[in-house]
Amino acid sequence: MQRANESASASASASADKFEEEVGRVMEQARELHESGASLLWKISNEEQSLRQKAISLESSIRRVRSSINSLVSKKLLDPKFASKLEEDLQRASSILTDGEAAAFLPAKAQGRFLRMFLGPINVRASRKEVQLKVKEEYNSYRDRTAFLFLLFPLTLLILKSWIWEGCLPAFPVQLYEAWLLFLYTGLAMRENILRANGSDIRPWWIYHHYCAMLMALVSLTWEIKRQPNCAQSRSLLCHCMLIIYNLLLINNLLNPVQRGVELFLQWAMMQGVAMLLQNRYQRQRLYTRIALGKANRMDVVWGETSGVDGQLWVLCPILFVMQGFEAYVGLLLLKTAFVGVVTEWQVICCGILLVLMAVGNFINTIQTLMTKSRFKAKMKRSKSKAELD
Amino acid sequence: MQRANESASASASASADKFEEEVGRVMEQARELHESGASLLWKISNEEQSLRQKAISLESSIRRVRSSINSLVSKKLLDPKFASKLEEDLQRASSILTDGEAAAFLPAKAQGRFLRMFLGPINVRASRKEVQLKVKEEYNSYRDRTAFLFLLFPLTLLILKSWIWEGCLPAFPVQLYEAWLLFLYTGLAMRENILRANGSDIRPWWIYHHYCAMLMALVSLTWEIKRQPNCAQSRSLLCHCMLIIYNLLLINNLLNPVQRGVELFLQWAMMQGVAMLLQNRYQRQRLYTRIALGKANRMDVVWGETSGVDGQLWVLCPILFVMQGFEAYVGLLLLKTAFVGVVTEWQVICCGILLVLMAVGNFINTIQTLMTKSRFKAKMKRSKSKAELD
Repeated sequence: MQRANESASASASASADKFEEEVGRVMEQARELHESGASLLWKISNEEQSLRQKAISLESSIRRVRSSINSLVSKKLLDPKFASKLEEDLQRASSILTDGEAAAFLPAKAQGRFLRMFLGPINVRASRKEVQLKVKEEYNSYRDRTAFLFLLFPLTLLILKSWIWEGCLPAFPVQLYEAWLLFLYTGLAMRENILRANGSDIRPWWIYHHYCAMLMALVSLTWEIKRQPNCAQSRSLLCHCMLIIYNLLLINNLLNPVQRGVELFLQWAMMQGVAMLLQNRYQRQRLYTRIALGKANRMDVVWGETSGVDGQLWVLCPILFVMQGFEAYVGLLLLKTAFVGVVTEWQVICCGILLVLMAVGNFINTIQTLMTKSRFKAKMKRSKSKAELD
Repeated sequence: MQRANESASASASASADKFEEEVGRVMEQARELHESGASLLWKISNEEQSLRQKAISLESSIRRVRSSINSLVSKKLLDPKFASKLEEDLQRASSILTDGEAAAFLPAKAQGRFLRMFLGPINVRASRKEVQLKVKEEYNSYRDRTAFLFLLFPLTLLILKSWIWEGCLPAFPVQLYEAWLLFLYTGLAMRENILRANGSDIRPWWIYHHYCAMLMALVSLTWEIKRQPNCAQSRSLLCHCMLIIYNLLLINNLLNPVQRGVELFLQWAMMQGVAMLLQNRYQRQRLYTRIALGKANRMDVVWGETSGVDGQLWVLCPILFVMQGFEAYVGLLLLKTAFVGVVTEWQVICCGILLVLMAVGNFINTIQTLMTKSRFKAKMKRSKSKAELD
């Protein structure tokens, strides 16, 4: 008995020793890891600092050389043909700097008020090029997913309207849709700001456009759709009677516009779903070309961008223009009803102005994009044919 | 004349040579920078990988040792006193791992659906401890700024209500306030998710609470405040007449609750502003202690947390409890009006449920926080007095 006890206590003390040793070892490892982590971070920050300074000085010397070449050309002291060759080389150097791995060490662009407002001063810039491309790829697939919903949501509402709701949209599903739009546009605006911080050259207008769309979704949430006189869902009998009087007193068509406006908006949203799907296809193809070219410089990539997808642009452009026209039409319709005095809610005026603004902005920016593309293509063709002649 | 021409062309060709050389140099530098950038990123990723593996294996060995100690204690093969000493050491090792510089190399916690939904798969985790503390500090100052607005916005609305709007809140300013609340809570929820990703031990409930508050702000945006019969801002004469009849037919008090609910909500929001200011003061003091202690481990930091700010907790707690009671009261009031049948809009029921839910959740979590704090303090006192005895 005593012996068993002794051996138990001996084994207990042995295991206690063993554990003490093991805990000591764990402690030692944790300290070591802490130190090597700290030293690695310190080393990284030092080397990054030196690369950052080099990148900044290189950027400024590119700018300096470029401006002195330009001034010599304007003083006719330098052959313009030779200058344009130099300019091309400079462009290539600057592409290597901004598109290559060294881009991570250029000082970050200011992240814009929008992201700061929601996220605070957090860094959303990926340091590795492949991560940046992954972010862009994910953005495209997000747009794809939402484009389907963009098509499906209003379609469902319109089908239910004519089948179940007897031609009258109830407030709740429409508000649900508007809340979804608000969420969607906020997400898109954030992702695009993040893309921009990661070096994408997305036109600022598309981000402003999403701000406008966010505002419109927010405004339309406060819009009292149920109030429309041709909606029979009013709860109280008295109110119902009043609506009937309303309908008798005024021509129904004049009171219709808000419901009609919502309906038009839904139809427009469906078209936008189709356009988004096409656009995504087009832009994804561009991105894949870019990834495939890998470390090729920016100029080559733009070559890839304009080649091979021209056919799709001919389908995409008319749809985009029709949509913009439709958007402006809905906006003007809303403004008309507001100024004729049928519906004087501020939301109507606000949504009308926003729709017209977005349509005009979209139109101008689509035109500008097309012009840049064709100008660039003409330039490329010229230099290509010149190279063939040489 | 010819000579001047010659010298001009000679200087032009000299400057052309000079520029060609300079452009060549710039090109060379860009390539070098690209290569050294790529090699640095590659080196960093390799070293990070090895540290990451070490950190993971250390984490798992801490877990293993802890569980075998616990099993030996439960089998009575190890002295509990000795085991608790070992446990303390293990805790210290794990603190060094999770709070020290090595924490950057532990695999990131999943960033949560909320951030992914809005931002995509972007990394919001800062690798350096000082950046993480900066993020927290900025979060606190953001809360401070919003706390003032939280106080100011409803106060202005209530003052204007009694001075200018003759006791009746118009829809637009209230909706503006609600939109601001939506923006504010979205921003808070995002920042808190980011803090969590950066290793903050914020209780998940506070984030859920902000989701609830976002939902409530969204729902209240769709709430048609103007419809209330005691509001005289209706536009059409017919509608106005109807309202008068309404008021005659029904007792005004029964129709009041939504306006009354909004008013109560505003008063509650003002109280929340005060509570937020106090809370911020308290939490900032805790953070400063943490920064001052610098590389001290977590246990020491919690020591610092509980010492010195006890007095403030005695002011803060009653205010928090009163606020939670008030929140539940407003929620129940809304539910009552909905079930009595005076106002049957779904928004009323939804807001009522959310308010009660938030009040209950806040209450439970405040209690739990206080209990953890007092339990920890008791333990610390015990070990301190034991150390003094020894």
